[in-house]
Amino acid sequence: MTRLLPLADEPAPERADAARNREAILTAALRLVETRGVGCVTMDTVAAEAGVGKGTLFRRFESREGLMAAVLNESETAWQARVISGPPPLGPGAPPLERLLAFGHSRMRVNVTHGDLIRAATGHDPVRSRAAAGFALMHVRHLLGQLEVTGDLRFLAFALLAPLEAMALEQQRVDGISLEQIERAWDDLVARVVG
Amino acid sequence: MTRLLPLADEPAPERADAARNREAILTAALRLVETRGVGCVTMDTVAAEAGVGKGTLFRRFESREGLMAAVLNESETAWQARVISGPPPLGPGAPPLERLLAFGHSRMRVNVTHGDLIRAATGHDPVRSRAAAGFALMHVRHLLGQLEVTGDLRFLAFALLAPLEAMALEQQRVDGISLEQIERAWDDLVARVVG
Repeated sequence: MTRLLPLADEPAPERADAARNREAILTAALRLVETRGVGCVTMDTVAAEAGVGKGTLFRRFESREGLMAAVLNESETAWQARVISGPPPLGPGAPPLERLLAFGHSRMRVNVTHGDLIRAATGHDPVRSRAAAGFALMHVRHLLGQLEVTGDLRFLAFALLAPLEAMALEQQRVDGISLEQIERAWDDLVARVVG
Repeated sequence: MTRLLPLADEPAPERADAARNREAILTAALRLVETRGVGCVTMDTVAAEAGVGKGTLFRRFESREGLMAAVLNESETAWQARVISGPPPLGPGAPPLERLLAFGHSRMRVNVTHGDLIRAATGHDPVRSRAAAGFALMHVRHLLGQLEVTGDLRFLAFALLAPLEAMALEQQRVDGISLEQIERAWDDLVARVVG
């Protein structure tokens, strides 16, 4: 289709390029964070991995803190997509108890990385992390409903999620508790709550 | 007993006076915080209530933030004393389930005030508030043990306490949930965990 004028809601070619570029940088940064750990990811390694200049990185994200805040959002969004439409048991298709357990385990592991990202993103983006907590809460509440748990499902979902939140996990790990222990203890908590 | 030289570990008279003075200020400030709410307590009202000059207040606590941090500690200490040796059912003497429920309700109400104090004390004292969380954790773990709950008691205590923490309470209240609802939902959670 040939058009003489660009439509108002269509991004100009430069903007589309910029968006693709941004996405490529975030994908590369997230891959590095997941394989090497937040502490080992510098602006240099991200620029090299994404195949862009370091100047571009600073122009788009201002600082390592800004980039890490963007990576945090990228990671949360990718994880939510897996919950909503990824393969079971995290995604739809598995029985609700199996989904709930998979959700907790996955949330815990994602939140270990997110704790590091939150610290690395100092001063950025607290709003999104509340939105993220809202998504997890809604999902667990939904699964509890499917499991025909009665009572204040929002509160029960909150209690189930709280020990898996980034800062709570960190506190437990400082006390020498392993992720495997937390996982087992969480499964036991779910069994008690679901009844 | 007459001594010619002061002992090294004995405070000089001026220091004892200063400590009494400090205690009187904190007691007055805590009383004001509990009756009027943190937002309505100024350095002026505290000085008047404690019968000291405003200059003394600033000399001892530097700023309203500093005073609020000290009031937070004062409040936590007073509350811990009630748990350890106050009247039942919060203090010793009641059956463990009754003590656990009283503990949760009391912790919730204290934490509503503590949330306001933490915000008013910006930049002060994160260490003490971790110590406070440690005390609550230990106590709930102890009561779960008395109730012969088996499993990872530390984790279960953590899950029980998390929805009562200051910031968690605030999140729930922003969503329009009343303290009475939280209290009922918490009792239900305790029943599930204790079994």
